[in-house]
Amino acid sequence: MTGSAPTVLVVGSIALDNVETPFGRETGILGGAGSFFSLAAAPLAPVRMVGVVGADFPDEHIKLFRERGIDLDGVERVANGRTFHWAASYDYDMNVARTLDTQLNVFGDFEPRLPERYRDTEYVYLANITPRLQLDVLDQVRRPRFVGLDSMNYWIGNADTRADLARAISRVDAVFMNDAEIRQFTGMYNLYEAARAILDQGPSVVLMKKGEHGAVAVSREGVFLSAAFPLETVKDPTGAGDSFAGGFMGQLARANDTGWPSIKRAMAFGSVIASFAVEDFSVRRLVSVTPDEIAERYEVLRQCTAFEALLEPTATST
Amino acid sequence: MTGSAPTVLVVGSIALDNVETPFGRETGILGGAGSFFSLAAAPLAPVRMVGVVGADFPDEHIKLFRERGIDLDGVERVANGRTFHWAASYDYDMNVARTLDTQLNVFGDFEPRLPERYRDTEYVYLANITPRLQLDVLDQVRRPRFVGLDSMNYWIGNADTRADLARAISRVDAVFMNDAEIRQFTGMYNLYEAARAILDQGPSVVLMKKGEHGAVAVSREGVFLSAAFPLETVKDPTGAGDSFAGGFMGQLARANDTGWPSIKRAMAFGSVIASFAVEDFSVRRLVSVTPDEIAERYEVLRQCTAFEALLEPTATST
Repeated sequence: MTGSAPTVLVVGSIALDNVETPFGRETGILGGAGSFFSLAAAPLAPVRMVGVVGADFPDEHIKLFRERGIDLDGVERVANGRTFHWAASYDYDMNVARTLDTQLNVFGDFEPRLPERYRDTEYVYLANITPRLQLDVLDQVRRPRFVGLDSMNYWIGNADTRADLARAISRVDAVFMNDAEIRQFTGMYNLYEAARAILDQGPSVVLMKKGEHGAVAVSREGVFLSAAFPLETVKDPTGAGDSFAGGFMGQLARANDTGWPSIKRAMAFGSVIASFAVEDFSVRRLVSVTPDEIAERYEVLRQCTAFEALLEPTATST
Repeated sequence: MTGSAPTVLVVGSIALDNVETPFGRETGILGGAGSFFSLAAAPLAPVRMVGVVGADFPDEHIKLFRERGIDLDGVERVANGRTFHWAASYDYDMNVARTLDTQLNVFGDFEPRLPERYRDTEYVYLANITPRLQLDVLDQVRRPRFVGLDSMNYWIGNADTRADLARAISRVDAVFMNDAEIRQFTGMYNLYEAARAILDQGPSVVLMKKGEHGAVAVSREGVFLSAAFPLETVKDPTGAGDSFAGGFMGQLARANDTGWPSIKRAMAFGSVIASFAVEDFSVRRLVSVTPDEIAERYEVLRQCTAFEALLEPTATST
């Protein structure tokens, strides 16, 4: 371990997306869990990225990552391949993306290889990739302080990948899942019961993602209900979950504190960073976020959720 | 005005329901917005009820209201009529009730007549009834301190009732609506924009109900995001919204303070009281709630949502 500021490592997709929402339609824009995560975490902590792109991946995006100080030594460029492509549209109910097209391209053969100096990274995020690859990454890192893992219905529903996923989950600190994924993985309807069943498998915290309704953390120390930032404009919800995770992990690394009060604050950072991500298409707003803007929204979110303790007895005279 | 504790008046339905959820099926159980509201508010403030029941309405329910100190002088019993009846079922997604049967019965001819001494009630809740009747009640009360109004898609979608509803809304302090109703009423997609459009029509606060995701208050002083109480067991969501309103109005009356910090606390009381309501069928859990139980959940909710202010600069050295 070095004495420098804790660093965040993310392993995940880098994509070129076509996205249509009621507020516009954009093609060939930067996307992918790894992209959103790293740009979300970058204002808070140094970020190292592991991923793969094709020959078609624009240099301007590489430049964008570099300008935000993101270490790209773990990103491989396949000379004769094409970048992962995803196309989706959203209706006014922007909680649900309708996938129109998925072309894995170079991402289909992705085998994460961590540069040697990445292996000591303290904070690690395994974005939504094949659970076997998540296990591969866990084998490559040396005693990370805190590992977060995201997954999806596809890996939960398949018996083979599900077994790998269960193994990966038993080796991480935080599991990021939405309500449906938590229910699918545990077979339990009640989300708190389900979250505790996941805690029993090893993790110290389950982060239940609820889209525009925020997120809920369940740990052995309690429950934290994290509201989504009250936003006027949502143009494109793509990447909200990974931006939340980026803000969360970035803040955890910045504080270098994984205790429960720190987890709560990191959740609020996640909500704040995600609120920037969805204000415009792709990572457009995310890349210009300043520390002052983050601090300002953090305080707004705190004001919008805080209420006073009871000062007087509840009962009327009876 | 007397010098006694402020009182809450509710005008709304009293029903006998059949309800089926994944956790059971019950028939002929006490329901209706007025019933849930009054039993929810009763632990916090004296409650006066205006409504109508038929000859079939069981005396045990009358006894139940009376035991909770609810003033029933405004409840009419129609000797040759039957009580309003509603039948519904819920799937695991308990945010949506599937109505199986509605028999208005005596509620169809309901004309709210306030006993003279009710007319000075300070806190008034107009549950979801025909907007014309809501206007009738507003004509009968004398300078209430705070009036809340609930409504539904049916009254918003019909041109005649919609005009009455707009008139009623212009005369109240708080409007309780869910997201879909707010969008339908204003024709605006963005909920904050829509809420402000409603504020422009007169009310001082719009309370957006979000079911299991809590509620959001929008006033000229800001936004308050009120989380739902993190509940292990939800057996029957019927009456959650009216119980929320009952807790909210009851606490507002108890504090006799309609300022913004008081509104925030009242929202938390609403969430807490609603959490008891949905733990069992009908009003079964609601009628046994004690002030200590309310205070305890209030503090749990506060702990589950509070996070610390920033103590340090957000930026890493750049």
